[in-house]
Amino acid sequence: MKSNLPLSQVYRLLEPGPVVMVTTSHKGRANIMTMSWLTMMDFEPPLVGCVMSDLNYSFAALKSTKECVLNIPTVELAKQMIGCGNSTGRRTDKFEKFRLTAAPAARVAPPLIDECYANLECKVIDARLATKYNFFILEVVKAWIDRSKKNPRTIHHRGSGVFTVDGRTIKLPSRMK
Amino acid sequence: MKSNLPLSQVYRLLEPGPVVMVTTSHKGRANIMTMSWLTMMDFEPPLVGCVMSDLNYSFAALKSTKECVLNIPTVELAKQMIGCGNSTGRRTDKFEKFRLTAAPAARVAPPLIDECYANLECKVIDARLATKYNFFILEVVKAWIDRSKKNPRTIHHRGSGVFTVDGRTIKLPSRMK
Repeated sequence: MKSNLPLSQVYRLLEPGPVVMVTTSHKGRANIMTMSWLTMMDFEPPLVGCVMSDLNYSFAALKSTKECVLNIPTVELAKQMIGCGNSTGRRTDKFEKFRLTAAPAARVAPPLIDECYANLECKVIDARLATKYNFFILEVVKAWIDRSKKNPRTIHHRGSGVFTVDGRTIKLPSRMK
Repeated sequence: MKSNLPLSQVYRLLEPGPVVMVTTSHKGRANIMTMSWLTMMDFEPPLVGCVMSDLNYSFAALKSTKECVLNIPTVELAKQMIGCGNSTGRRTDKFEKFRLTAAPAARVAPPLIDECYANLECKVIDARLATKYNFFILEVVKAWIDRSKKNPRTIHHRGSGVFTVDGRTIKLPSRMK
């Protein structure tokens, strides 16, 4: 039997892509924020659409520098991921506070988070919906992965402190890319 | 040790939100497509950004009728989900072929897929990026959930026929909505 779902709860159904930790760099300071509102928009070059609220300290950095790194944590980093989401770069050096390692990126100024098993260096290529929707289109210009991590379990945000961790993998006869 | 990840593989890292089955209705015919390129864009009213390739039969339906339903399947529907992704509505009545039940929606013309544990009725509110990026912004105007389904395991597309199924749930002291 189905019943009404409050509209305010819809995001808890749709949001769960992998939670990412976004690094930016502005005026000589690197920062980290936690984000899960993003989607692929094209395969190659890979385009990613993401929503970054203008309430975030990172918003001004992304808007003015047009560069960021999407760092993908596995569940082992859940504490750091939530810590970065709960605090603001206005007052905190999150790399120091959460003992994360900033590694230099190849194509952009913001650092990679070394502990994340994959890192995607990005440039903003379209910000025309940034004012109305806080929506940015990023092009991934360089991507890194730790191949020794055989079974990376990413985290999916379900809202209100609840997260789902990747479970089993299934293989299906797909014709989709 | 990190090494280069081919840019063509990036989508396999970022895409994994829940796979949805999108229903549209055009010229008296309902259709279904499988989609995983979508993101939340606002909480309330819930806005959802999604990419629907103009190669899809559903594209014209969405663009002209400006209505769709996002139906969220659990892993029990994996076969139907993949079947809808592997076939085209140009030649197939997918409801019939995959034995799915079309139930009437409350606010839009396209039907709900009854077997999906949640259904989100949507209207296109912004299509200004549809030509360049096949990107549509949807407003969810009515949402349905089957609350008897206690532990719905959604499916996440990892590309090349590989899918991850939701695993365990963790609770973290989050200040994020």
